[in-house]
Amino acid sequence: MEQKNKIKSWPEAATRLIAVAAGREPADLVIRGGKWVNVHSREVLDGYDIAVAEGRFAAIAPDLSGSIGPGTEVIEAEGRYMVPGLCDAHMHIESGMLTPAEFAAAVIPHGTTTMFTDPHEIANVLGLEGVRMMHDEALMQPVNIFTQMPSCAPSAPGLETTGFEITPEDVAAAMQWPGIIGLGEMMNFPGVIAGDRKMLAEIAATQNFNKTVGGHYASPDLGSAFRAYIAGGPADDHEGTCEADAIARVRQGMRSMMRLGSAWYDVETQITAVTEKGLDPRNFILCTDDCHSGTLVHDGHMNRVFRHAVACGADPLVALQMCTINTATHFGLERELGSITPGRRADLILTSDLATLPVEHVIARGKTVAKDGKLLAECPHYDWPESARNTVHLGKTLMAADFEIAAPEGANTVTAKVIGVIENQAPTKALTAEIDVTDGLAQPDTEKDIAQIALVERHQGTGGVTNGFVSGFGYKGRMAMGSTVAHDSHHMIVVGTDREMMAACANRLGEMGGGVSVWKDGAEIASVPLPIAGLMSDDPAETVAARAAKMVEAMAACGCTLNNAYMQHSLLALVVIPEIRISDLGLVDVTRFELTDLFE
Amino acid sequence: MEQKNKIKSWPEAATRLIAVAAGREPADLVIRGGKWVNVHSREVLDGYDIAVAEGRFAAIAPDLSGSIGPGTEVIEAEGRYMVPGLCDAHMHIESGMLTPAEFAAAVIPHGTTTMFTDPHEIANVLGLEGVRMMHDEALMQPVNIFTQMPSCAPSAPGLETTGFEITPEDVAAAMQWPGIIGLGEMMNFPGVIAGDRKMLAEIAATQNFNKTVGGHYASPDLGSAFRAYIAGGPADDHEGTCEADAIARVRQGMRSMMRLGSAWYDVETQITAVTEKGLDPRNFILCTDDCHSGTLVHDGHMNRVFRHAVACGADPLVALQMCTINTATHFGLERELGSITPGRRADLILTSDLATLPVEHVIARGKTVAKDGKLLAECPHYDWPESARNTVHLGKTLMAADFEIAAPEGANTVTAKVIGVIENQAPTKALTAEIDVTDGLAQPDTEKDIAQIALVERHQGTGGVTNGFVSGFGYKGRMAMGSTVAHDSHHMIVVGTDREMMAACANRLGEMGGGVSVWKDGAEIASVPLPIAGLMSDDPAETVAARAAKMVEAMAACGCTLNNAYMQHSLLALVVIPEIRISDLGLVDVTRFELTDLFE
Repeated sequence: MEQKNKIKSWPEAATRLIAVAAGREPADLVIRGGKWVNVHSREVLDGYDIAVAEGRFAAIAPDLSGSIGPGTEVIEAEGRYMVPGLCDAHMHIESGMLTPAEFAAAVIPHGTTTMFTDPHEIANVLGLEGVRMMHDEALMQPVNIFTQMPSCAPSAPGLETTGFEITPEDVAAAMQWPGIIGLGEMMNFPGVIAGDRKMLAEIAATQNFNKTVGGHYASPDLGSAFRAYIAGGPADDHEGTCEADAIARVRQGMRSMMRLGSAWYDVETQITAVTEKGLDPRNFILCTDDCHSGTLVHDGHMNRVFRHAVACGADPLVALQMCTINTATHFGLERELGSITPGRRADLILTSDLATLPVEHVIARGKTVAKDGKLLAECPHYDWPESARNTVHLGKTLMAADFEIAAPEGANTVTAKVIGVIENQAPTKALTAEIDVTDGLAQPDTEKDIAQIALVERHQGTGGVTNGFVSGFGYKGRMAMGSTVAHDSHHMIVVGTDREMMAACANRLGEMGGGVSVWKDGAEIASVPLPIAGLMSDDPAETVAARAAKMVEAMAACGCTLNNAYMQHSLLALVVIPEIRISDLGLVDVTRFELTDLFE
Repeated sequence: MEQKNKIKSWPEAATRLIAVAAGREPADLVIRGGKWVNVHSREVLDGYDIAVAEGRFAAIAPDLSGSIGPGTEVIEAEGRYMVPGLCDAHMHIESGMLTPAEFAAAVIPHGTTTMFTDPHEIANVLGLEGVRMMHDEALMQPVNIFTQMPSCAPSAPGLETTGFEITPEDVAAAMQWPGIIGLGEMMNFPGVIAGDRKMLAEIAATQNFNKTVGGHYASPDLGSAFRAYIAGGPADDHEGTCEADAIARVRQGMRSMMRLGSAWYDVETQITAVTEKGLDPRNFILCTDDCHSGTLVHDGHMNRVFRHAVACGADPLVALQMCTINTATHFGLERELGSITPGRRADLILTSDLATLPVEHVIARGKTVAKDGKLLAECPHYDWPESARNTVHLGKTLMAADFEIAAPEGANTVTAKVIGVIENQAPTKALTAEIDVTDGLAQPDTEKDIAQIALVERHQGTGGVTNGFVSGFGYKGRMAMGSTVAHDSHHMIVVGTDREMMAACANRLGEMGGGVSVWKDGAEIASVPLPIAGLMSDDPAETVAARAAKMVEAMAACGCTLNNAYMQHSLLALVVIPEIRISDLGLVDVTRFELTDLFE
């Protein structure tokens, strides 16, 4: 299977490309009579033909009918725009709860032909071996999926325990794999700023291979800490949330990646750096970072981001550059993809409108892969081994007692730290609340919207459970919601108002081999099985999206009306984004990067 | 010596850069209170300090006085513009008749801190060994001189004989040298278009190392031949001469290099693609290609090109991008140089005016290398071996008879092809003229401005002389002008009105070990010794420029008033640029790439 979608390199294809361009040999494919959207010159040029050979563009000219031989496929553009295939500059496939193959199958009809993926989630569960599995399935696809070698597993050493750890030696080894394009987001920004040897060794291993170091600077501080992080080597950052963030990154020589994910809304607030402040747009890039399968099925992928950027006032040609050539240039691939010019991979979209970008026909490597929203290519599955399908190790059957939070001796109430969820934002708020004590136990309180949260260890089977409080979901009645998607270490997060049900939920996830389970009044009311690493399903996106939709309905049935509540749930252990999170080691103050006590 | 100017790589320097940026350690150098010219965002930002450590930028911020320790050098910018050091994207050092060291010494005071040099001339004389010598001297300099591995020696196989030939194996070997940045201009465009295996193997060897393939498409045909050449892989081209050339190159995914050399004037005619047609400027780059030492001494280098671009209507910030970050990006060096941002080599200029760009202070790798036009750094010399200093092999003492052009038996006049020199242009005109015959010999005719031209073989000592006619120099009286700088195979070109003196001139060049010699009325009236490969002097630019000026005066004394007459002389054997040239194998029709008869 791995050979099926292989493409010859430019030098391997050169003799044929030249012969086709010179008119000596017929093309494999000719697309006739379209508007050439040129992202190099930033122009639309009417009345052009495109000749393709060996999966690469051979020639673009006003009339290439001479390149049509008996075996040449001909596609009539009928005056439509011929746009380079869209690139997602930074994203995590696991966020779709899909395998690379099923993710590709979901996004190809939306015109995405290139993705830069950081399989950081599986790295936390299965280490370098898991990264290799993702990398290998990625290379089997009919579109371009480049892998960014995850840099931070654990993302915050000392604050959490992962299934596996990534070392500088792992990074150096991975840099030689064919599909590795650089280092995944360097989230340990305090480490870089402090000169942490391990983090710098990973960056050095990447730079020494002339590859791109991904950044992740999740702090509003644009002073010396920010500058020190940049001096460490990360080349891009997608954590900016306001115009000043975008401008500061670009001025300091980084590329600003602006994201519109399922739960990220960072384009509108930053793109004004270009649309209003008039900065050179070349260093601005669009990406998704994280998309749910439901977003992919119902709303789109990079076409959605593009449309949004245009709706935010970006010139369509500039916005297109931000998801084609800017991205390619950033990763050192500007002569490999990202534009419709000779030698590049023949990835393109036919569309009738350049502002709304209806994706009518998608060609990847010179083959039609989707038409009118329908996938027309095979996206081969990797043969995932048992080690990847059996990753939820609880070590014991959990009981309600495992979720009890003992109050200090004799207290009637206690002042506790509470993780405050903020709608549509990644950072949490560090709240405090007066918690009632009954039978010596601090109790959840649905009146005050305070539920219990538990982090259940699932990699080593220690049976460990960390308990705390969370506010913002609005859960009512007796319920529990659990997930083995629990960024970044991907233990299991269970949020609930009832300890019995929290235990039942956790045990159910153990049986399922991972996924999501929602319980109400003593019974499971929805589930999303994610058997691969407890993170992904190898079912199609539609199936997974339907299950996820039921899960969201089930959460709503439990009283939760938060936008993107599931993603918020899964981020509650992400101990690199302020202000307060939970890990297998305890409650974490992410403004100080240290463990903190539950009670004040 | 080679270690002296070495700079640590970013990863090697990272710990220190971070410590300085974070404010934990003092900087090596702080530049205070300037206007930060930001080529990423395309802005000028007033009131910034710059901290430098390990020869790289560590931080740029409004106040870095905290980074000044007892050992920190402080330079007061006094409100001036802080501009990235200028890059020359494509050039031949040999054109200055200077060694890399002396070329660097000449251009550093003009603010050039990076050059991409194709030592194509020495490759024709000394082969790979000569390239290595240039490469090694380049790496010894206090500024960045990257070497493009020459691709075409001979530049037109079958049409000339070089001292050495470059093979694909040579190219593959050179790609692993530390200073090699890519392949030098692929001048054999007919070969690429025809799918020539040797040329494609050189391109493949370069692409397989992820390095940049330089282009050279010297034809006005923008049709299928042009597209076939581009499909072959060259990534840039500096042979465009009009707006349509520049636009076509950029649309097809190449970078358009616009040159202002001593005798190239291709900026004004092409930059309108940006200034008037409004194309995205990112793919336009400025370069010199060829500069005489006199130009360097009297007019400048890339600062001259920049000023010219601004005078042609370019926005100064856009023009600066064209000789800084655009160039760096093109060669995959955008994170190594070309902007004043953390991690990059600390190369910058202080200037009081952004349009005229007076170069007041030049810093390279964090050290002051020039101030107010005066060089303040050492530019170490390579120890050139005897093999490089003894390259003019005539094989015999030449006589007037060697320059005789026998007319067909019994003819009184004969119709001959004449090489027509066009002022300020590289192409020649294929003229024909009625030539008088005396004593059976076709004769030069100063009345009609027809002189003799001879190509004297000097690599193998064959004693071979090819004779022909040239028009356009305006020589009067008895004279001869000879040079061992004779692009590209660098035999010896002698132009004269008198065969005795042509022989004397050739013999004199043999004694000198190469260079230029001008004779009038039986005596040498000027000479420029170029003992290294017959191409370069290791004297300073001022000395060489003074000698060259005398040479030009001497040519004028012989009646020549042509602008850049010396360069025109030296290009008359350049058998890759139309229309007609001379080589050791005969007269060459460069519109057909074939040898042609002197007489019609």
